[in-house]
Amino acid sequence: MAAMAQAKAYTVGIDFGTNSVRCVIVDCMTGEHVGAGVATYPSGEDGVLLNPARPHQARQHPADYLWGLEACVAQAVREAQRREGFIVSRVMAIGVDATGSSPLPVDGRNRPLALTPEFEKHPDAQCWLWKDHTAHREAEEITRLAAAHRPHYLKRCGGIYSSEWFWAKILHCLRQSPEVFAAAESWVELADYIPAVLTGAESPEMVRRGICCAGHKALYAEEWGGLPDKEFLSLLAPELAAFRDRLYGKAWDASVPAGALSADWGGRLGLPCGIPVAIGAMDVHYGAIGAGIEEGTLVKVIGTSSCDCAVLPASQPIPEIPGICGIVKGSILPDCYGVEAGQSAVGDIFKWWVEKICEGDASLHLALSEEAGRLHPGESGLLALDWNNGNRTVLVDQLLTGLLVGQTLYTTRAEIYRALIEATAFGAYTIIGRLRSRGVKVDQIVCAGGIAEKNPLLLQIYADITGCRIFLAGSGQACALGAAIAGAILAGVHTDWDAGRKAMTSRKPTCYEPIPAHQEVYERLYHLYRQLHDAFGVSGTADLAPVMKQLIRIREETRSKLQYQ
Amino acid sequence: MAAMAQAKAYTVGIDFGTNSVRCVIVDCMTGEHVGAGVATYPSGEDGVLLNPARPHQARQHPADYLWGLEACVAQAVREAQRREGFIVSRVMAIGVDATGSSPLPVDGRNRPLALTPEFEKHPDAQCWLWKDHTAHREAEEITRLAAAHRPHYLKRCGGIYSSEWFWAKILHCLRQSPEVFAAAESWVELADYIPAVLTGAESPEMVRRGICCAGHKALYAEEWGGLPDKEFLSLLAPELAAFRDRLYGKAWDASVPAGALSADWGGRLGLPCGIPVAIGAMDVHYGAIGAGIEEGTLVKVIGTSSCDCAVLPASQPIPEIPGICGIVKGSILPDCYGVEAGQSAVGDIFKWWVEKICEGDASLHLALSEEAGRLHPGESGLLALDWNNGNRTVLVDQLLTGLLVGQTLYTTRAEIYRALIEATAFGAYTIIGRLRSRGVKVDQIVCAGGIAEKNPLLLQIYADITGCRIFLAGSGQACALGAAIAGAILAGVHTDWDAGRKAMTSRKPTCYEPIPAHQEVYERLYHLYRQLHDAFGVSGTADLAPVMKQLIRIREETRSKLQYQ
Repeated sequence: MAAMAQAKAYTVGIDFGTNSVRCVIVDCMTGEHVGAGVATYPSGEDGVLLNPARPHQARQHPADYLWGLEACVAQAVREAQRREGFIVSRVMAIGVDATGSSPLPVDGRNRPLALTPEFEKHPDAQCWLWKDHTAHREAEEITRLAAAHRPHYLKRCGGIYSSEWFWAKILHCLRQSPEVFAAAESWVELADYIPAVLTGAESPEMVRRGICCAGHKALYAEEWGGLPDKEFLSLLAPELAAFRDRLYGKAWDASVPAGALSADWGGRLGLPCGIPVAIGAMDVHYGAIGAGIEEGTLVKVIGTSSCDCAVLPASQPIPEIPGICGIVKGSILPDCYGVEAGQSAVGDIFKWWVEKICEGDASLHLALSEEAGRLHPGESGLLALDWNNGNRTVLVDQLLTGLLVGQTLYTTRAEIYRALIEATAFGAYTIIGRLRSRGVKVDQIVCAGGIAEKNPLLLQIYADITGCRIFLAGSGQACALGAAIAGAILAGVHTDWDAGRKAMTSRKPTCYEPIPAHQEVYERLYHLYRQLHDAFGVSGTADLAPVMKQLIRIREETRSKLQYQ
Repeated sequence: MAAMAQAKAYTVGIDFGTNSVRCVIVDCMTGEHVGAGVATYPSGEDGVLLNPARPHQARQHPADYLWGLEACVAQAVREAQRREGFIVSRVMAIGVDATGSSPLPVDGRNRPLALTPEFEKHPDAQCWLWKDHTAHREAEEITRLAAAHRPHYLKRCGGIYSSEWFWAKILHCLRQSPEVFAAAESWVELADYIPAVLTGAESPEMVRRGICCAGHKALYAEEWGGLPDKEFLSLLAPELAAFRDRLYGKAWDASVPAGALSADWGGRLGLPCGIPVAIGAMDVHYGAIGAGIEEGTLVKVIGTSSCDCAVLPASQPIPEIPGICGIVKGSILPDCYGVEAGQSAVGDIFKWWVEKICEGDASLHLALSEEAGRLHPGESGLLALDWNNGNRTVLVDQLLTGLLVGQTLYTTRAEIYRALIEATAFGAYTIIGRLRSRGVKVDQIVCAGGIAEKNPLLLQIYADITGCRIFLAGSGQACALGAAIAGAILAGVHTDWDAGRKAMTSRKPTCYEPIPAHQEVYERLYHLYRQLHDAFGVSGTADLAPVMKQLIRIREETRSKLQYQ
């Protein structure tokens, strides 16, 4: 027994989500999760600090992170220690992922300003959570200026710089709270901040930044010298140009560690000090690794929206893929381009239909799903566009809305429910088509996320519509698992990422195979979907492209008139 | 008092609806309804004889009509006699309307075959109710042959001969039940049969046929010699050509009576024998008179679907108005062209949304109506097409379906409810535009029917979208009232139809005026509605015209495959 235990190797993965932080301790030989812990952030609403007067604001307090980090790791270690054969000294590395872009301002000692007495209560000194949209004007400004002066910046991020991203948020802080901007020695992404804490980085210069956040959210690319140049930044604000030097000159992929676990934090977490801490990355990107990404495998994380990840060898020139969220060398796997795409709403559309329109709950979700499952493709005569929350990929247009066509006086709620699932599948297939047309192989799909795990009907429809075999990731904690795998590679437990994937990832037993008879009908429906997609979504192809936008304009004008009455 | 009573004049209007027959006794000087009666048909489901094995079948038993006729008139007379001053000898005439086209086969003594022992139980010997669609193949055949050989026939009936109409039903009977066809001496519309009964017509030749059913449902026009010629009919079936002689050579407008009330029926009904019985007409056409139709006034009867009536002077050549249901000289008022148009679904669309999708009842109708009434035009960002049951006017296409665009994750059921009302109003406005473009004046609208009476929000939206002042007919029994007015003209109580209208029709006190601020928004939305309307409804203008049809084809193919599994 002692000999066997001696051979064991474990790594720790820590996943900072929107509402909680989760930890898994993973057996590097089998991928088994021998310990798990979860800590829900104590502040705000489910961990998010909102402000009714500023509905776009969504912040988090850094104290929650540090408290949650200790709490969830302690819980996971306790659970692991109840296992026969687990020895904490065989924990070989730690990996960390986090939501992004979630930047926070830090002082010269790398302390978040929100943890200093002066700024403890200041909302703009907190972490600007990914879904904070207060910087939408700044994002539009960056997009406009980049289109005019640095079009190559936009080609890597789907043509539009988002209000959720790094530069927009910092610029908004400069304008909204110059005192916070002035007090910040630097800004750090949460995914980089946590590894920096664990490795004892005592100044912002010591923080090793990950390529994932840098490339996808901060317009970083080695070929143009890292972050956007000062000349461009000065078009936004001279202060921003001056600030560039206090950020970073180099970002790193997961082939190098962020550093080694400090004695202080090793003690706090009860883990061996000195073990490597992996470079930080965004949750979905380590999630893709935890779901078993490799060339030819598309990972779809399906929740309220979807996030799609693919990789392709970096041995070829970087392809231009219009309409995707981003393509960054090394952002998922080192030596590969990491591609991110996504759908603005998936689960949210079903939730809207069931909860808002049908006024039902989880049991109605189930009942409609069962009834919809008895329908055959094409039987309802319905077709929908999945744009209730705009279209992220491939149209990159938030000013698009939903559409349903084909309803009669006999159309049922279950038929519409199924049509909405099919619409999201057609949207997914459109993304796959765009990826393939630019040389990204997509042979099979591995899904993760709550909606995918709860809805076998959706997975079968996705298989029938995309023509791909669909699997479900074996781990319910794919993000944390991916971070643990990054740790295992750094610690040398596996010789390369391929070996790590084979040993540590798994899939649920059921494979959803495309059913040829369904595929045939769905091919015809997809042809019609593309007609609607192009007519309403692509200007220049038909007169209908302005319809949705004009409806939105009329809506906004009406609403703003009502406000002044 | 005796002198005043002496001056009084009353007429009786009798309205054979789908589920019941109603009678009103009207004061010809004031339009006041001094007596009313209703008799619900005793047979079948709400008076309709269905056959689960033939879902398109809808029949009525003629015995129900004769029983209901006596019952409702007796009830109305009893009620009138309780009034001070009413003297039954001052009843000056009777008018009758009925649903149409509802033809029934009769024998040589003008007895319905269904009232003879041999055919008492034979469904094809009963009255073929207007909504019987068993003859859909025959209707397609008539349309196809007319398009090839008699295109002028189709120009008067919107381009398509309907399965609801006279010739299609007789042809289907010939093929389905040749023994019934052979036994029939003639076929008579219900609207003609009842006046024939009241006037004691003892053979089909003695039945005076009304121009309303003849012109709108049987392709009758004086300029081409009455009914369709034998050569055309022989293309359908030689038996049909031979049968033409046993129908009629002449049809009459309401300026002549069907005849005089027989002694037998005068006795049965307790009414003075010998008084004139007006020519029969379809319910909506006499309803238009009861609602006060004149040149410039569009009458909209809004129920599950809508039926729109207008008149224009017959002094000009008959205009060609593509896409309407029909235009017939004298079908509403003598000396005028009567124009009929309509929407395939109005109340049925709201019913679908509230009852089928939201699973609510009358109270939800009310709640959604209140919530929708608090919304402003354009506020929801939604736009719908009102085609859940196809489009009758102006596209004349049953292979069209509903469409909703503009929905987000926040769209509510009340917003969609309002968008559906607006869609039917845009559809109504499209009909008005078509009428105006061909010289039919539309200055104001008088509405009647259950949906109009129950829904003030709808009337306001219709006013805002059409830009017309909207009134509600004063009588809840506009059809029976119109029949009574026809009687009053024949009896000479009023010198002309204009005088009859002024004396006997009224409007509810509320007038719905267009609100300029609403009109402005709705003009912009109507522009978008027309873009969708033309793109999806008119082939040749955009690539989207086949979308709805292909969805229906895929649906039908899928369903028929499932039937054989």
